[in-house]
Amino acid sequence: MTFWKSFFQENKKNNTKNIFHNDIIIEKKNILIIEKLKSGDKIFDIYLNINSNINLHDLEKLCNSVGWVKRPIKKVKIALNNSFLNASLFYYHNNNKKLIGFARVTSDQSFNATIWDVVIDPKFQKMGLGSILINQVIKELRYYDISTITLFADPDVVPFYQHLGFIVDPDGVKGMFWYPL
Amino acid sequence: MTFWKSFFQENKKNNTKNIFHNDIIIEKKNILIIEKLKSGDKIFDIYLNINSNINLHDLEKLCNSVGWVKRPIKKVKIALNNSFLNASLFYYHNNNKKLIGFARVTSDQSFNATIWDVVIDPKFQKMGLGSILINQVIKELRYYDISTITLFADPDVVPFYQHLGFIVDPDGVKGMFWYPL
Repeated sequence: MTFWKSFFQENKKNNTKNIFHNDIIIEKKNILIIEKLKSGDKIFDIYLNINSNINLHDLEKLCNSVGWVKRPIKKVKIALNNSFLNASLFYYHNNNKKLIGFARVTSDQSFNATIWDVVIDPKFQKMGLGSILINQVIKELRYYDISTITLFADPDVVPFYQHLGFIVDPDGVKGMFWYPL
Repeated sequence: MTFWKSFFQENKKNNTKNIFHNDIIIEKKNILIIEKLKSGDKIFDIYLNINSNINLHDLEKLCNSVGWVKRPIKKVKIALNNSFLNASLFYYHNNNKKLIGFARVTSDQSFNATIWDVVIDPKFQKMGLGSILINQVIKELRYYDISTITLFADPDVVPFYQHLGFIVDPDGVKGMFWYPL
């Protein structure tokens, strides 16, 4: 469990208190992953959830915040409904969830999984939240004994995923894309 | 529709009669894709089907024929049940289906799809069947307006997929894998 070692170490370094329970598989439950995270002049408790309902407009706003091309809400809804895992990071403000991170996974629920749409609100980047999110996704997939976890990484985030144990082109296997002409 | 052009041309070259209907989206129907295909000293009519029930032992035999590592039938069943598309190629012998090709797809049914487990019986390789299979998979996915079709290709099949219009590492996007330690 190298990931969890590095995850815990990382949190220690950041002086955040990690109360995540390593042996609990969460399902539609909010897990407090970081208490009293400082961003700007504010303090936040950050929660993680797998497969909770996600407000599509909040997700759109989050994706806008990192400059992604706007996608039809209807198509986003279909994609989320047909993803095996939808993982979200958020904090509460006046009892409302404020979405600050997201990732989703397509999978055959047996051998393979592919992670898509990983996004962290710029105000909360460089705080280890992306690592926590992806490590939790890996943990969930391992619970289902899924052993090939894949993704397609833009060049600037390849080192981030390498740090989490992902390998580029193992044994020369190449990621390939087909787009409509 | 460059693919279908090349598909038709390929069939002409092979002197097979293609009665595939370009505008029909098939669903649980057997489509005769090649009449009178010669393999060894025998002649076969080859059919394609999307999402029909696949005999798991036939699939195991097919995967064995190309030297794949044996996988637990129970896990294969889960994977097929949770794949968006299962595409198969076969011929009939005494009213029994003989499986000679297979590919399956995980997808969010909206934006992205990933093709897995592409296999053609060695006795039927180098006849254009792999191209027909993948082109039909692409066609089905395009029917759902899925525009990012991905796969992970071993080095020896990269040119095959390039020929079908797949691109390696577009804009430097890298395929990455995580495996359990």
